[in-house]
Amino acid sequence: MKIVIAPDSFKESLSALQVADALEAGWKTVFPHAEYVKVPMADGGEGTVQSLIEATAGRMMQAEVTDPLGGRIQAVYGISGDGKTAVIEMAAASGLHLVPPARRNPLYTTSYGTGELISAALDQGVTNIILGIGGSATNDGGAGMLQALGVKLSDKHAVSLGYGGGCLANLEYVDLSGLDTRLANVSIRVACDVRNSLCGEQGASAVFGPQKGATLAMVGLLDGALSRFADIVLRDTGINILNHEGAGAAGGMGGGVLLLPDVMLQSGVQIVMDAVRLEEKIRDADLVLTGEGRMDSQSIRGKTPVGVALAAKKLGKPVIAVVGSIGQGYEAVYEYGIDAVFPIIRSPGSLEEALQNGYDNLLSAAVNIARLYNLPR
Amino acid sequence: MKIVIAPDSFKESLSALQVADALEAGWKTVFPHAEYVKVPMADGGEGTVQSLIEATAGRMMQAEVTDPLGGRIQAVYGISGDGKTAVIEMAAASGLHLVPPARRNPLYTTSYGTGELISAALDQGVTNIILGIGGSATNDGGAGMLQALGVKLSDKHAVSLGYGGGCLANLEYVDLSGLDTRLANVSIRVACDVRNSLCGEQGASAVFGPQKGATLAMVGLLDGALSRFADIVLRDTGINILNHEGAGAAGGMGGGVLLLPDVMLQSGVQIVMDAVRLEEKIRDADLVLTGEGRMDSQSIRGKTPVGVALAAKKLGKPVIAVVGSIGQGYEAVYEYGIDAVFPIIRSPGSLEEALQNGYDNLLSAAVNIARLYNLPR
Repeated sequence: MKIVIAPDSFKESLSALQVADALEAGWKTVFPHAEYVKVPMADGGEGTVQSLIEATAGRMMQAEVTDPLGGRIQAVYGISGDGKTAVIEMAAASGLHLVPPARRNPLYTTSYGTGELISAALDQGVTNIILGIGGSATNDGGAGMLQALGVKLSDKHAVSLGYGGGCLANLEYVDLSGLDTRLANVSIRVACDVRNSLCGEQGASAVFGPQKGATLAMVGLLDGALSRFADIVLRDTGINILNHEGAGAAGGMGGGVLLLPDVMLQSGVQIVMDAVRLEEKIRDADLVLTGEGRMDSQSIRGKTPVGVALAAKKLGKPVIAVVGSIGQGYEAVYEYGIDAVFPIIRSPGSLEEALQNGYDNLLSAAVNIARLYNLPR
Repeated sequence: MKIVIAPDSFKESLSALQVADALEAGWKTVFPHAEYVKVPMADGGEGTVQSLIEATAGRMMQAEVTDPLGGRIQAVYGISGDGKTAVIEMAAASGLHLVPPARRNPLYTTSYGTGELISAALDQGVTNIILGIGGSATNDGGAGMLQALGVKLSDKHAVSLGYGGGCLANLEYVDLSGLDTRLANVSIRVACDVRNSLCGEQGASAVFGPQKGATLAMVGLLDGALSRFADIVLRDTGINILNHEGAGAAGGMGGGVLLLPDVMLQSGVQIVMDAVRLEEKIRDADLVLTGEGRMDSQSIRGKTPVGVALAAKKLGKPVIAVVGSIGQGYEAVYEYGIDAVFPIIRSPGSLEEALQNGYDNLLSAAVNIARLYNLPR
């Protein structure tokens, strides 16, 4: 019997590898001779770098980059075990958590540091970059990132624009000629699970601006600025980012990346599954185990277990999910290939206790699920 | 497929029938055409009357009896659907919860009301009585119960003894001639899961006296009084209760009942299983579901799921337990025939929340356990 164990992390409790370890340990008490293939997973959001490093025996890298407010910060990213793929989380350089609430203002916050992280990864000679763009503090259309990689954005006086989404209102010229030439040979896959367009009511500024500190007035300014950015980009480069699905993700970073030579926006979990060759590992498996910290009605929107289950179901494999907790509407996952869901909490108690007891709870659940799976019928 | 559902109640949350209902509802979403046989169970402790009434479509009865301190109280007991069996919980008439903590004193508390409940059941024409003796306030060797049923206990002046374990120190004569003659035709099975003898270090007074309010000095008095009780009983009736296994249960009630004509002390869960003819129902089942409010290392000591599992295992049936929560050492139940154990809590929260959400949590767990059971392998 071959069992593929492909869980996400349990946020604030266990890394994806620790989750996989606990599941394996539990199943081994019942099926000691089964073949276990552990594949730490992620969905392009928080924890993606760690999971991919764990999955590929890769390494963590560090680089000094620009933070969202223009200061300096040490940011980490990952390199896969074979050295070919870099994994970057935008939040490491340009994340909202890096900006104190009182200073959150997307007129000024920049994605410049994310560009510097990409540049640092290029220095390592990678040929693939996986870019997770969740949790950003910015609404600059990825302009800062582009500038860090050599794109020239200037005003009517041919003066380079400063940091922040507000400056794009003064954009007059876009010049790609200085773009880092190494990018021509690097495939960039951007983990993007939203479909928002760059501008308008469903655009970056209106939908995500407020949670980054934008007032209603700022939203108007930012939306106009991104619209101007798209217009000038189209005129000067021929690239139409305005209505590209997902261009509104991460303050318009989903649009800005489209100026790079070899870029694709894709579902985060799909990118991760491809990177760890999950489908190939599932092909001859008898059973797939997955899991996440909390499963609820949102789990069908690009979360790891559903991504794993859809891949497993294409191959006709049963899928069992083990989760930290379950919430309203979790049953929706049944339609996406998950056969059964088990929360692991053993007794009443606080969230803190549940997080602390994660490994033991998971181990206990795994033992009992395996014992049930082993029943004759 | 035939599934027998034989859970205990989830104390303070769901009756045994409600637990069985939730399990059935969950399994029916996966196996709509299976045959479900619901058997509300109990172990002779709290909830036994309700479970047996639920299991046999019986009825609840009420009688005015003497409370542990000599006052009057309305106490309930049950009559099975066929009218042949009465189910009495000693605690209903003589329970510790009926005495305010400040007034708990086993020198004075009496089991008289329990005898009156037995008498009331005899009035209903039953031929069997199941007597649960957990949770008593008394340490009177069942003397009060015997007096209520016509046994004469008197001092050296031939004056009848008053209430309470302390009075037995003055016992001089035991006379069974006045015993209710109806008892000759009634089989009494006493649910008793402890092995304590009547007196001594492992006797009723030393082990259970303190939790009923006895000081160290009282324990000495009470132990001497029960010893005298046993001596006089042996001399006047030829019945040796002193070293009978379980005689020390419920303040010596386990000994006192031995003076009745047709009495057997047995494991509570075994008595209940016999009463509901569980083994017969399991014989052609494919699967047995059981459960209890909390499963831990104590669950192997006479609790319902282990009793059910032992019966099921004799017949080679798989057993799945679904429980409110699990605690340290619960894995011991695997050795007693339980194949897998699933706690039902869906997310972190207080005990109160868990108790309130009992039905929904149980239903959700049942659905997923059934879905897993249904997986192809």
